[in-house]
Amino acid sequence: MSRIKNLREEALEFHKVKPGKLEVRVTVPANDVDDLTLAYSPGVAEPVKEIAAHPEDLDVYTNHANAVCIVSNGTAILGLGNLGAAASMPVMEGKALLFKTFGDVDAYPICVNTTDADKIVELVELIAPSFGGVNLEDIKAPECFEIEGKLKEHGIFKGPIFHDDQHGTAIVTLAGLVNALKVVGKNIEDIKLVANGAGSAGIAIVKLLMSMGLKNVIMCDTKGAIYKGRPAGMNKYKDEIAEATNPERFSGDLAGALVGADVFVGVSAANVLNEDMIRSMAKDPIVFCQANPVPEIWPIERAFEAGAKVISTGRSDVQNQINNILAFPGVFRGAIDVRATDINDAMKVAAAYAIANLVKAEDLRTDNIIPSAFDPEVAPAVAKAVAKAAIESGIARNPIDPEIVAQNLKKRLANQYK
Amino acid sequence: MSRIKNLREEALEFHKVKPGKLEVRVTVPANDVDDLTLAYSPGVAEPVKEIAAHPEDLDVYTNHANAVCIVSNGTAILGLGNLGAAASMPVMEGKALLFKTFGDVDAYPICVNTTDADKIVELVELIAPSFGGVNLEDIKAPECFEIEGKLKEHGIFKGPIFHDDQHGTAIVTLAGLVNALKVVGKNIEDIKLVANGAGSAGIAIVKLLMSMGLKNVIMCDTKGAIYKGRPAGMNKYKDEIAEATNPERFSGDLAGALVGADVFVGVSAANVLNEDMIRSMAKDPIVFCQANPVPEIWPIERAFEAGAKVISTGRSDVQNQINNILAFPGVFRGAIDVRATDINDAMKVAAAYAIANLVKAEDLRTDNIIPSAFDPEVAPAVAKAVAKAAIESGIARNPIDPEIVAQNLKKRLANQYK
Repeated sequence: MSRIKNLREEALEFHKVKPGKLEVRVTVPANDVDDLTLAYSPGVAEPVKEIAAHPEDLDVYTNHANAVCIVSNGTAILGLGNLGAAASMPVMEGKALLFKTFGDVDAYPICVNTTDADKIVELVELIAPSFGGVNLEDIKAPECFEIEGKLKEHGIFKGPIFHDDQHGTAIVTLAGLVNALKVVGKNIEDIKLVANGAGSAGIAIVKLLMSMGLKNVIMCDTKGAIYKGRPAGMNKYKDEIAEATNPERFSGDLAGALVGADVFVGVSAANVLNEDMIRSMAKDPIVFCQANPVPEIWPIERAFEAGAKVISTGRSDVQNQINNILAFPGVFRGAIDVRATDINDAMKVAAAYAIANLVKAEDLRTDNIIPSAFDPEVAPAVAKAVAKAAIESGIARNPIDPEIVAQNLKKRLANQYK
Repeated sequence: MSRIKNLREEALEFHKVKPGKLEVRVTVPANDVDDLTLAYSPGVAEPVKEIAAHPEDLDVYTNHANAVCIVSNGTAILGLGNLGAAASMPVMEGKALLFKTFGDVDAYPICVNTTDADKIVELVELIAPSFGGVNLEDIKAPECFEIEGKLKEHGIFKGPIFHDDQHGTAIVTLAGLVNALKVVGKNIEDIKLVANGAGSAGIAIVKLLMSMGLKNVIMCDTKGAIYKGRPAGMNKYKDEIAEATNPERFSGDLAGALVGADVFVGVSAANVLNEDMIRSMAKDPIVFCQANPVPEIWPIERAFEAGAKVISTGRSDVQNQINNILAFPGVFRGAIDVRATDINDAMKVAAAYAIANLVKAEDLRTDNIIPSAFDPEVAPAVAKAVAKAAIESGIARNPIDPEIVAQNLKKRLANQYK
């Protein structure tokens, strides 16, 4: 039972107290002249000289590796749309809170007042000395693709670059789908899947699922099915999707696409799915309704009444919450600990299976396909799997034992705030 | 007595432990679903909407006002020169440590990999949604002047903009000089002062002292006295200085300039001052040797033997340490608490007198002109004086009682790490 009686009022009060949700803290003693002699002048000159001589020592003497900038321009804040960089600050402070609480990652909000993708790319590259990783957040498509693509292509920012709205969502969706398919006894290679919503999340989900063997897939947006040669509402990212999916060039609407489908994945908008559509799907329909805060069909009982077998949403008050918190803290923890230069598909898939495997075979049920966001085993398991995949991909600069990565995170979290 | 036996070794070890000196911490509960409902989705949408509708509410619901970015490109790190942005990280983490420890300001290092002043200006303006203040640090002249000047001129970054190497140094120098002149019974209007070192600190010191009535002043650099029409080694900032100082166009070297001078202020280099120069000064010479880590004359006994009456350095192991720690934490605390839009000359002068006045008349001696950096009264007194001056200047958006500013800082520091 929730203690919250008036969400709006209590949420505003909660943010007013300090105000905000973050502070910068000192992790070394600073009590007397000797401490300051070591921490600042003249002692600080020694690590300065070391880093100047050996650039890789930046991670030895500063918090650089564990510092992640959460970069947003506020053009796609939650489901609220383009409200600007300043309005995105509470979300980015909240994201930093989740990074710290679940992954002991020191994330800091960098809210950037521009809609120019190139300016954001340049900015992130310029501040690379301060941050070991980048998490892009709430930046609308297609700029989010451009920014991520150019940052990776340039190679100036050396650490992991991750757009959680894309890849975090894709990881947790894959995790949920792996277990949902087990429950209904189907294989990803054989199913028909319809994804609704062709923004950053939808495209990333479809790409990751296809890398895992999904073949029969149709993506829809507000104009209906995306197909090669569609005359309107395309961009280069949808062109790419049209090339790779929907080989029969189905050109109808969502309802038409869903006929005979095994899985619906919605990252779109409230109430775009109805009972008739679910009834038209194949046997044991899997229905993932991840629109926030109101799912694609609501209340969720409507989906069950129409015959949906496995249902998930982004909400904490419904069974099977598909929540990015399950992925990004552990993904970054693992990537940081082995000093991965990227977060590649192998690492994303490993994260998804680590999450899925936390639901034991004997506990797997239609209403229990995904672990709780508060399960303390999740982030260590994800970090371990991601570290292992990074090492096996050959992109780990510090290939330590993945089991140590998991153990260290447990210790870090146990010692937080002590 | 210092506990430190091997500075280099111990300073490196000190930085390796975590590693670094900072972390980002959460200041709200994050223990269960209800906490996350308020801190993140869906509750966080409420402050987002408030800020979108009322931009000034950014300070009501986030840590924006108390967040200061410490911006450096590492072109003038301590006395070590241009070692680059990455090598500046330990210093900027150290600066953040001092901001937190003495002023409870949440400062974060933003080390920028460019020598282009305009790019730094643009970057700071782009990240204005995340930071309420800017402290420029260890950026070489003349870029530091350009960056500060353009940021203030553009008015895009609305909060206090401060270059500590300039203004912090000027404040503590003025504080020391006010008391040194009391000790020797001279007035600032009547003295002859020679400043050696025409970088950012030297120029800022001379400007601030002139705003307080200093008239007879000669600035020197490595080429000797700066005078109007000097053929070599000038730039637009030195031209300005030449216009305002040295009316007799003295064109000799430092030794020549010092003949008959009452005060020497060095922000230059080790051992450029000698006994003969001090002997040539007026009665009761005041000698401020602020080069770091080795002062302009060293060991300091040489200055006493040559007749110096009041001596100060930047070192903690010698009497009268002129240390920027005395100024910047309280300056920012005061400016932030009253939401000052700038840190103007009136606020700098107020800070200097607040520091000077902490040495009671009965304790004022040649070897006691300035309070200790660890005196807990300093930052609250500075914050109060700065807040008062901001209000009187009409640039305080939140003109609260300055006494409350001082009391709040004492409470904040008492509650830190609890």
